[in-house]
Amino acid sequence: MIVVMNHNSSAASVKQVVEFVENAGLKTQVSRGEERTVIGLIGDKTKIDRSVLESLQDVAEIIDVSKPYKRAAREMHPDDTVITLDNGLKIGGKHEPVVMAGPCTVENWEMLIEIAKAVKAAGAKVLRGGAWKPRTSPYAFQGLGEEGLKLLAKARAETGLPVVSELMDTKEIPLFLEYVDIIQIGARNMQNFSLLKELGKIDKPILLKRGLAATIEEWLMSAEYILAGGNTKVLLCERGIRTMEKYTRNTLDLSAVPVIKKMSHLPIIIDPSHAVGHWDYVPSMSKAAIVAGADGLIIEVHSNPEKAACDGGQCLKPKLFGDLMKDVKDLMKYR
Amino acid sequence: MIVVMNHNSSAASVKQVVEFVENAGLKTQVSRGEERTVIGLIGDKTKIDRSVLESLQDVAEIIDVSKPYKRAAREMHPDDTVITLDNGLKIGGKHEPVVMAGPCTVENWEMLIEIAKAVKAAGAKVLRGGAWKPRTSPYAFQGLGEEGLKLLAKARAETGLPVVSELMDTKEIPLFLEYVDIIQIGARNMQNFSLLKELGKIDKPILLKRGLAATIEEWLMSAEYILAGGNTKVLLCERGIRTMEKYTRNTLDLSAVPVIKKMSHLPIIIDPSHAVGHWDYVPSMSKAAIVAGADGLIIEVHSNPEKAACDGGQCLKPKLFGDLMKDVKDLMKYR
Amino acid sequence: MIVVMNHNSSAASVKQVVEFVENAGLKTQVSRGEERTVIGLIGDKTKIDRSVLESLQDVAEIIDVSKPYKRAAREMHPDDTVITLDNGLKIGGKHEPVVMAGPCTVENWEMLIEIAKAVKAAGAKVLRGGAWKPRTSPYAFQGLGEEGLKLLAKARAETGLPVVSELMDTKEIPLFLEYVDIIQIGARNMQNFSLLKELGKIDKPILLKRGLAATIEEWLMSAEYILAGGNTKVLLCERGIRTMEKYTRNTLDLSAVPVIKKMSHLPIIIDPSHAVGHWDYVPSMSKAAIVAGADGLIIEVHSNPEKAACDGGQCLKPKLFGDLMKDVKDLMKYR
Amino acid sequence: MIVVMNHNSSAASVKQVVEFVENAGLKTQVSRGEERTVIGLIGDKTKIDRSVLESLQDVAEIIDVSKPYKRAAREMHPDDTVITLDNGLKIGGKHEPVVMAGPCTVENWEMLIEIAKAVKAAGAKVLRGGAWKPRTSPYAFQGLGEEGLKLLAKARAETGLPVVSELMDTKEIPLFLEYVDIIQIGARNMQNFSLLKELGKIDKPILLKRGLAATIEEWLMSAEYILAGGNTKVLLCERGIRTMEKYTRNTLDLSAVPVIKKMSHLPIIIDPSHAVGHWDYVPSMSKAAIVAGADGLIIEVHSNPEKAACDGGQCLKPKLFGDLMKDVKDLMKYR
Repeated sequence: MIVVMNHNSSAASVKQVVEFVENAGLKTQVSRGEERTVIGLIGDKTKIDRSVLESLQDVAEIIDVSKPYKRAAREMHPDDTVITLDNGLKIGGKHEPVVMAGPCTVENWEMLIEIAKAVKAAGAKVLRGGAWKPRTSPYAFQGLGEEGLKLLAKARAETGLPVVSELMDTKEIPLFLEYVDIIQIGARNMQNFSLLKELGKIDKPILLKRGLAATIEEWLMSAEYILAGGNTKVLLCERGIRTMEKYTRNTLDLSAVPVIKKMSHLPIIIDPSHAVGHWDYVPSMSKAAIVAGADGLIIEVHSNPEKAACDGGQCLKPKLFGDLMKDVKDLMKYR
Repeated sequence: MIVVMNHNSSAASVKQVVEFVENAGLKTQVSRGEERTVIGLIGDKTKIDRSVLESLQDVAEIIDVSKPYKRAAREMHPDDTVITLDNGLKIGGKHEPVVMAGPCTVENWEMLIEIAKAVKAAGAKVLRGGAWKPRTSPYAFQGLGEEGLKLLAKARAETGLPVVSELMDTKEIPLFLEYVDIIQIGARNMQNFSLLKELGKIDKPILLKRGLAATIEEWLMSAEYILAGGNTKVLLCERGIRTMEKYTRNTLDLSAVPVIKKMSHLPIIIDPSHAVGHWDYVPSMSKAAIVAGADGLIIEVHSNPEKAACDGGQCLKPKLFGDLMKDVKDLMKYR
Repeated sequence: MIVVMNHNSSAASVKQVVEFVENAGLKTQVSRGEERTVIGLIGDKTKIDRSVLESLQDVAEIIDVSKPYKRAAREMHPDDTVITLDNGLKIGGKHEPVVMAGPCTVENWEMLIEIAKAVKAAGAKVLRGGAWKPRTSPYAFQGLGEEGLKLLAKARAETGLPVVSELMDTKEIPLFLEYVDIIQIGARNMQNFSLLKELGKIDKPILLKRGLAATIEEWLMSAEYILAGGNTKVLLCERGIRTMEKYTRNTLDLSAVPVIKKMSHLPIIIDPSHAVGHWDYVPSMSKAAIVAGADGLIIEVHSNPEKAACDGGQCLKPKLFGDLMKDVKDLMKYR
Repeated sequence: MIVVMNHNSSAASVKQVVEFVENAGLKTQVSRGEERTVIGLIGDKTKIDRSVLESLQDVAEIIDVSKPYKRAAREMHPDDTVITLDNGLKIGGKHEPVVMAGPCTVENWEMLIEIAKAVKAAGAKVLRGGAWKPRTSPYAFQGLGEEGLKLLAKARAETGLPVVSELMDTKEIPLFLEYVDIIQIGARNMQNFSLLKELGKIDKPILLKRGLAATIEEWLMSAEYILAGGNTKVLLCERGIRTMEKYTRNTLDLSAVPVIKKMSHLPIIIDPSHAVGHWDYVPSMSKAAIVAGADGLIIEVHSNPEKAACDGGQCLKPKLFGDLMKDVKDLMKYR
């Protein structure tokens, strides 16, 4: 249940509603947007006398929310969430879409800095790179771990690009707080609820990838775990879902962009590389994502894809990435 | 197995290859593109002496095709197929993407002509409308049948727009040959092989929708049925596949566009209306389809969606369709 | 809406309800079961004065049916449907599960009669064999056609086994009426509504396979098309659905058995051969189907699977089929 | 690559092979079955001189394993794995299938002990109950935590039934080692690789549930993570996969039983309750699982399902569970 206040309602009116609700034993969540203030009610609604609530000063409307997520719902938070990184870069809302790019895995310093400089020159605003890698096989390369994070931080120092990297275990949270700007949670951990709860307690942007066969509702519920813990900086990332199709690695669900824009206020980023799994399908899907309204892209780029430690087949070479960035910039005006 | 001839190979060289292959008991299919001529071999390849074949005049290369489709494969037909309607409209290749629009179902003349004029004014080049409707329930409205086709033909006479409508039964083929410009085959009939075989025998463009859970390979195999029968005018239409997602009616597989462009020479049309099932997601997916490289769109438009005989929720009103068409035209240059 | 009559309600009471409903402009469907008589109302229920209807003689209850299928619903037809073949064999209800067996495709007389005798000796009650084959590729063997049906009828004459074979086109209905005992409709034609409508007009049992990605509700809606046309002899056949799993050809949805038993009165047959696609998984799934409550099995058997014209990998050899039949007979008491 | 030794090969022969392989820089894994001893090679096979290896004493055969899992593969471990609990109960191989039963969630002592006694009386051999619950919503009841484990251990003390409960976080491993007999890993954590690695280091049976949309191969790869860490006590648990079907909660993939039996040596348990999601479909699926060859069942039982803290709709009442157990015992001989 959500209480929507009149435009220009006073702080006193809001306070009165909050007290009325809390006196009935429920909790409240006040969200002040540019256009309107809304107050979310959490708890047993049957304890509320609705007719009294409606009659309070400045109460415009009471909305019953049928969706199981509340903090992630646009109804509760009509304005788009904008996430600001430490270097001032803003993601979401009316801000220009942000392109994150870099290698699948951090392999060594030379490779990393070469790619970082190339993607920066082409217009990328965030550097991506895996230090811990979720691998289906226990015998596959599992990433450089802490050493990888340090290399990313060094690349940030040299290029000025904020960095995003995947976290797989709560015990590495302190390292990620120190070294990265955005913590990525992979598709396979989208419903690792213990991890999500810990992420709710920190103050760092989270890029939450959609699970392999997760519905959009389940994905928003996982975001809700983080938001409910107090961390409001969640970026959603669509990376393809599992279907019967075999010519692509996964099926990119691009319609998730307008759906998320309608249902939620959180920014949505598209990962075309993992979705399609072949570099030559990445440019068209990247351009499509921009005009569909995505708040950003996360793209794998490698100078030498044939020798990449993982997923080389889906990496763009820097030259092709540069060509794509020109189109992406042109297309931003059609969002 | 495909024989690729040298640039500017003579007719005599091609004839020699064809005779050599046919003398061994196989069939051939000769495809003359602007850049190169290729000769497809159909039958038992073990009967061919490959070293002799390679030594024939003007033979540049012999390619073993692993794909189960041949006539639908780009390897066999390097140039894009361009389909020309009776009014001269060209679909495919480097031609401007074509927008087909109109009501889900033909309900009556007033409704039809109103929508037809509106979509023409906005820039649509083909009028869509169902006369026979595939309905999950036997108790649902099944369409006007022949009367619907006549109304479509009348709307064509008045507006000049070619028409596309869905065929469900071989026995109505004569009517469709008379009244429509493009015959649509719905998702549920994609593997109705008896129907596909009959479509191979006629000379009319076929818009072949992808099945609800069909792989791209199966879809191309169904196109192959039509092509193998002798009808080369096949347009593929992606209309969403069935997944676990519930917020959209189906999941639009937009990556099918670059995949089809790579694997096949046939034009690909996107149907965002059936894919997403909600009018408010249609514009962003339409724009995305264009920049992804689609050869056209097929969009449901209705002046009064609330009262539409079916699928009203996914119809755009003419005003919104007009706005969308402006963006679509601007975006065509980014294909 | 369904009117449930009291036990032992008189014919006069039933007639009175029917007349009351039909006078209001609706149609009725009367179903007399052993335990109770129910009257289905088809049409605009708002025209009915419910309080009057409830007050009529012998009316026990009025049920609002939310399901989109009516004739296929158990609510409308509380007793199990039992289908009797021309030779007296009964399928459904409390009758012993029926095993249908034979080759995927009818190839020639010697092969067919050898297999027919073997499966009969092992306890099969119906002979299966394809004459027209739905093949993904236009270049694959498409079946013997009419010649195949004639061979099946000849095998029936020799063994006494009724035959089941797949129909793909309405134009072959007369041949099937002449030669076969059960008409099979394949998964790819489950929503070929033109075909379903024609099947509603004939008097021959239909084995309706579930579509590759069809929900149980859609499957029952397709059965409803046949039932609504007047043909009440529908057998449902689960043959596996398409999922992400690759170690089996499809995923056998065995839970469809209890679901169908609850939702519908129609018999359900399990096809383990197409579901799993490997002969060595067929016995365990066949046994499981029986104890789950299936009314029958349809199993591919071939004396020489390595040389079968299609799907050899999923065929049981007669010896293994014989072993399986012993277990199946023992297990029937645990249904 | 796997080296298969002759029957009755001597320890000296095995040692010679191991030393030859390890001298080349690879690791070995020796598996002594009742019928044959096999030696798995892990590492870069190109370093091995195959002709020399073949010529060593008692080497019967060298098999190239194409599967990505090795320790979980039957090729490496021809005999069935049998897991022995602390109370001597054996699961797997030719041992009688084991039924695990109990409430979805441990709610309080009275409820737990009542159900525990009832399921024991009916023939269950293991008590199940959730202490930490994976919930899609952060606002749903998350379980009693440590208190729940203590109640389970108390119920074990009173009834003698070993207990199984779900672990969600590595930090609770010490508690689980103390209180439970089998650690369950839920579907949503099947690819939580950090957790799997920790489970490889402990000596406690793991019940590894299949992921919501995981292939059997991915599931075996997750088992491989645990096995590769040194913990050989893995039980696989099929609990339904996500499909388009809506009448059941998930689709029970019962064909996973014969597939796992062929591909792996690990025991497989079926969870019909979560698979179908409705109590009235549980008995038929339980019986089907037994004759399909499952090594056990895990079934939700609750004395008062209407008031269960979660998933009440899929719980059997003790009376119905008792009836089912009689059938299950009778059917064990048909495995």
